[in-house]
Amino acid sequence: MVQERDSRLFHIEDTIRRLLRRNAETHLENAFEKLHPAETAQVFRNLEPEELQSAFHVIQDIERRAEILSECDQHIVLALLDPMANEEVVALLKQIGSDDARHLLESLTEQRAAEVLELLGIGESFIIEDIMAYAPDTAGSIMTDSFVAYFDETTVEEAVAEVRKANEAEYVFYVYVLDEERRLRGVISLRQLLLAEPDKRLSEVMTAHVWSVNVHADQEDVARLVSRYNILAIPVVDDSSNLIGIVTVDDVIDVLRDEATEDILKMAGTHAEEITNLSVGRMAWVRFPWLFVSWLGGIGAAWLIGSFREELSKVIALAAFMPVIIGMAGNVGTQSATIIVRGLATGRVSPNAWLRVVSKQLGAGVILGAAYGVLLGILTLFQFQSMAMLGLVVALSIAASMILAALLSSILPLLLHRFRFDPAVATGPLVTTGVDIIGILVYFSIARFLLL
Amino acid sequence: MVQERDSRLFHIEDTIRRLLRRNAETHLENAFEKLHPAETAQVFRNLEPEELQSAFHVIQDIERRAEILSECDQHIVLALLDPMANEEVVALLKQIGSDDARHLLESLTEQRAAEVLELLGIGESFIIEDIMAYAPDTAGSIMTDSFVAYFDETTVEEAVAEVRKANEAEYVFYVYVLDEERRLRGVISLRQLLLAEPDKRLSEVMTAHVWSVNVHADQEDVARLVSRYNILAIPVVDDSSNLIGIVTVDDVIDVLRDEATEDILKMAGTHAEEITNLSVGRMAWVRFPWLFVSWLGGIGAAWLIGSFREELSKVIALAAFMPVIIGMAGNVGTQSATIIVRGLATGRVSPNAWLRVVSKQLGAGVILGAAYGVLLGILTLFQFQSMAMLGLVVALSIAASMILAALLSSILPLLLHRFRFDPAVATGPLVTTGVDIIGILVYFSIARFLLL
Repeated sequence: MVQERDSRLFHIEDTIRRLLRRNAETHLENAFEKLHPAETAQVFRNLEPEELQSAFHVIQDIERRAEILSECDQHIVLALLDPMANEEVVALLKQIGSDDARHLLESLTEQRAAEVLELLGIGESFIIEDIMAYAPDTAGSIMTDSFVAYFDETTVEEAVAEVRKANEAEYVFYVYVLDEERRLRGVISLRQLLLAEPDKRLSEVMTAHVWSVNVHADQEDVARLVSRYNILAIPVVDDSSNLIGIVTVDDVIDVLRDEATEDILKMAGTHAEEITNLSVGRMAWVRFPWLFVSWLGGIGAAWLIGSFREELSKVIALAAFMPVIIGMAGNVGTQSATIIVRGLATGRVSPNAWLRVVSKQLGAGVILGAAYGVLLGILTLFQFQSMAMLGLVVALSIAASMILAALLSSILPLLLHRFRFDPAVATGPLVTTGVDIIGILVYFSIARFLLL
Repeated sequence: MVQERDSRLFHIEDTIRRLLRRNAETHLENAFEKLHPAETAQVFRNLEPEELQSAFHVIQDIERRAEILSECDQHIVLALLDPMANEEVVALLKQIGSDDARHLLESLTEQRAAEVLELLGIGESFIIEDIMAYAPDTAGSIMTDSFVAYFDETTVEEAVAEVRKANEAEYVFYVYVLDEERRLRGVISLRQLLLAEPDKRLSEVMTAHVWSVNVHADQEDVARLVSRYNILAIPVVDDSSNLIGIVTVDDVIDVLRDEATEDILKMAGTHAEEITNLSVGRMAWVRFPWLFVSWLGGIGAAWLIGSFREELSKVIALAAFMPVIIGMAGNVGTQSATIIVRGLATGRVSPNAWLRVVSKQLGAGVILGAAYGVLLGILTLFQFQSMAMLGLVVALSIAASMILAALLSSILPLLLHRFRFDPAVATGPLVTTGVDIIGILVYFSIARFLLL
């Protein structure tokens, strides 16, 4: 861990808090100047609302303000833009790329965003409105219009001259090549451009094979392409193959990270927004549905146990082993489901090879089920020497439930994937409560058969 | 999802399998030529061992072979290199960057790697041995020596001429600037270099503020720096600040993805290797310890329940509600722990703000505990109208266990982080079985007090 770096940041956070309390504006200015905008955004996350306003107030430079806002979470952007005049927001928007502009505008209410766009003037607001029009989580929503493209008839010499003149585009590592109808035809890296003979045309020196994505493509797919093929930026085209933007690797990293966070939190039955969301009530609300499914499963389990009341009343000791049996089966089931869900997400598990994948999970389930069956059986025998049969019941039950759990939890995500549902659902309450019920059923059925 | 792309790959996989069975080498060659090395590696993952050998045999071009091997998982690299002569392996190594060479050599046995390095010749084996010497998961283990650096006295014109001449370096988006002792002094992007006046020295035009990492830094920290500051490559320096390599953004993406996979699987009590590991026995073995902790917890729970035998025998119905109470408490606990563990990993939860973080989780626990307490209480009242008290016991128990679970599961990861342990441990069996035991204790204590 970059413990040093992070603890540096914590230290700075403390200093800033202290300076804010003392209202020491000059010191504060100095402190913020030493921070990267991403670090400032990080510090902002942990300030109280009033501290946040005073801290932002200290930062005067508009370019810096814009950079910081681009790095902030949306609820912080909202808090910071709220007291500002629309003219100020417009000035900020003019400082940043179209992808960051989208980020800022999305934090505002629809009405205010419209007011700001109107103030922004036709040319620029047109581009931003275009970008705002793409659905969230599509290539269009994360692309930027800061790229360099020339027509295929341009000579290398002209292109180099153009690159020199070009505005500070975000990414000029690649120069894109277009035909006369602005359709993407090829790509050339800046270095290749430097190496090429000056009087050649771009069409002669470019790489004609170029990955691109449609503007409506899912951002996760874009991320997967960029990371699979190790590219720094991927061109985005509209339905007529016209080049309209690029997605750069830094945005891809954000997508991959958010996706991983989303997957992790989905496993626990909550949402990524919970980490940033400030209200406790909303947090509880987000978790409620998942817990409700689990609760229904619990009620089902209670009803099921109730139907074995007779067995229980005869052998009270049966109750003692319920948690370990359903717990262990749930654990093995979660493991199998998680392995397969993550394997599908990273491409390491192929749905084509489902038989091999399921057999492996089943195999592990059999080994673990047998091992823990023997362990639990022996322990029970020692504990309840008067009832040898109880040991056998408990051993068979834990083995059978673990094996069944491994089998079902590995089939379920593959089935969900096959029918184009999100396999991650399988790591949720469906499996855990399903396995609870199966475990109880197996346990008491075996008990009824062997004990009574 | 890039369903189209992925289903294209599945389709190709099927085709390749069919061609392999028919031994149609020419068709196979054509099929592989159309694939990116990363796609070929993806197809290789799902082939049986004998298919794998025949498929690789078809690919003759050594450069292509090397590219594909760089993209393969290590157990596949091992399988492919195993039947090869050492001379062939050396020829392959000469085709690839030092970071990929490490990947290949690490797949071999130590003895064979030594033989290959000896064959490779002094100059090259020296560089690779250097890289092999860095501990796994450090900056040194993922860096490449393919970078461009010039002394600070070099003129812009000379540097541009050098870049044109340079070997095909992996990343020439940045040119690094060194002082006479090869210490890193600055950086200039290729585009800035193009724009600079030709007779200026690099020291005059470079950016002196440059992020770098020590060669022994943890790769996760490197990844965090690169992703936080949106840079494409970060220079790696040794303890004397000499520039010895760079870590590029594509490797950072791999690190971030592997880290996320590792975190996700850790939550389920298994390891990332399980996805690629082929042996069922080893899979079971990897999971055994985690399950064992959980099993011990289950035994503890059984013993605890046994000590409440009297209560149970008087009110058999008590047993029925055990799974729902410990299940719901476990769910809320996992949610709180997961939110905080992931928040710590992504920097969205600050340990400085622990009081606010824990209060929020506790708040959500109180709301959810109260809600499900009321729901369960009402349901129990309807079910067991003769025993109004049971409803109260069950309602109080589920509420109290959920609240306790939320509190403990949010404090635990913060404590672990504070004392520099891995907070992810908190999402494992420690919490789940701990919560099981707390739930049972709370439940039967309340029952003893109110029912008997």
